Amino acid sequence: MDKSHSKMVEHSKIRWLINKTTEDWVNLAISNPIEILLDHAHCERKAAGVALQLMFRYVSEPGLSEVLSPLAREELEHFERVLAILNSRGKKLQKLASPPYGAILAKNICKEEPMRMLDSFLVAGLIEARSHERMKLLSIHSPDLELRNLYADLLKSEARHFGIYWKLADERFDRNILTSRLDALARVESDALVEMHQAPRMHS
Amino acid sequence: MDKSHSKMVEHSKIRWLINKTTEDWVNLAISNPIEILLDHAHCERKAAGVALQLMFRYVSEPGLSEVLSPLAREELEHFERVLAILNSRGKKLQKLASPPYGAILAKNICKEEPMRMLDSFLVAGLIEARSHERMKLLSIHSPDLELRNLYADLLKSEARHFGIYWKLADERFDRNILTSRLDALARVESDALVEMHQAPRMHS
Repeated sequence: MDKSHSKMVEHSKIRWLINKTTEDWVNLAISNPIEILLDHAHCERKAAGVALQLMFRYVSEPGLSEVLSPLAREELEHFERVLAILNSRGKKLQKLASPPYGAILAKNICKEEPMRMLDSFLVAGLIEARSHERMKLLSIHSPDLELRNLYADLLKSEARHFGIYWKLADERFDRNILTSRLDALARVESDALVEMHQAPRMHS
Repeated sequence: MDKSHSKMVEHSKIRWLINKTTEDWVNLAISNPIEILLDHAHCERKAAGVALQLMFRYVSEPGLSEVLSPLAREELEHFERVLAILNSRGKKLQKLASPPYGAILAKNICKEEPMRMLDSFLVAGLIEARSHERMKLLSIHSPDLELRNLYADLLKSEARHFGIYWKLADERFDRNILTSRLDALARVESDALVEMHQAPRMHS
């Protein structure tokens, strides 16, 4: 990432997450490491799915597939890494009930183009930004060394990923419109986390 | 790939493709290298999509994501490689009308489980097998050295990919049922190519 891009992302990062993750979430997460790993595996898989879905939907959009295809590959690499840790601990991938977070964000994406494209980038970026914040917390507070190392490694990519979504939006949309939609969606994102979902999840 | 697996695939390969690709297709394809590259990029992208879709649909199936996630990553790598060649020749990714091939195969997949799973593996394998056969022809007959090298590199993975789909099927289904469905679907696959689609496509 070049300096100006990194600065821009740093600047934008301030506005991405309105509320910080609570200590309650951290305590719930580190007390349920396997459930969080399982959910995390699903998050990586879904993040690859989102990137691929955008590549399918905007197939002729110049410069889009060039950045989303490597991003999808990286999400799948992370998925495989989390899966390998689960398998090494005798756990298999299994369905988990999702918290309402993703559905609430998806519901707030504009239905009409070109705003649908902008909102899709911003929502994907918001999810990456929240994952980044929470992985950082897990990389510090998890009592399990293997997991601290895992999250420390993965969170570097998450930062890059929300930078990619920011850039995709910033290259295509007026900065004022972008900022106003980001403010609105960031509010939705933070509100979706205020009432904590009972089950331990990356985005509960 | 271990010896027994390779042997099994070799054996099964005989039954995958009932009709050989015609000289007419080869001539059409090598006379339209850019259109074939464009279509090929879409094929790689769609192949990644199929692998991911199966990972989503059968999320709790043991041993499935472990092989389909790396396969999807490899398809995306190929997609990026083809896209880079297109870009280097001043061409951008754009929508192309698909030949009826994929839709005909999809229509013949059983609607009910567990046969839907078996058929999905076999159809994905058949498409990989046909891609392998055609890439091999292009790696020999294309008058363009860069493209001959591209296809020669990619076709090694395609062979591995249909081996993966065969193995996924063979590990989970009775060999007699498997063979009988493969015979039926291979007939559909070859028939779908008998009347050549006018436009030059990987599966026209």
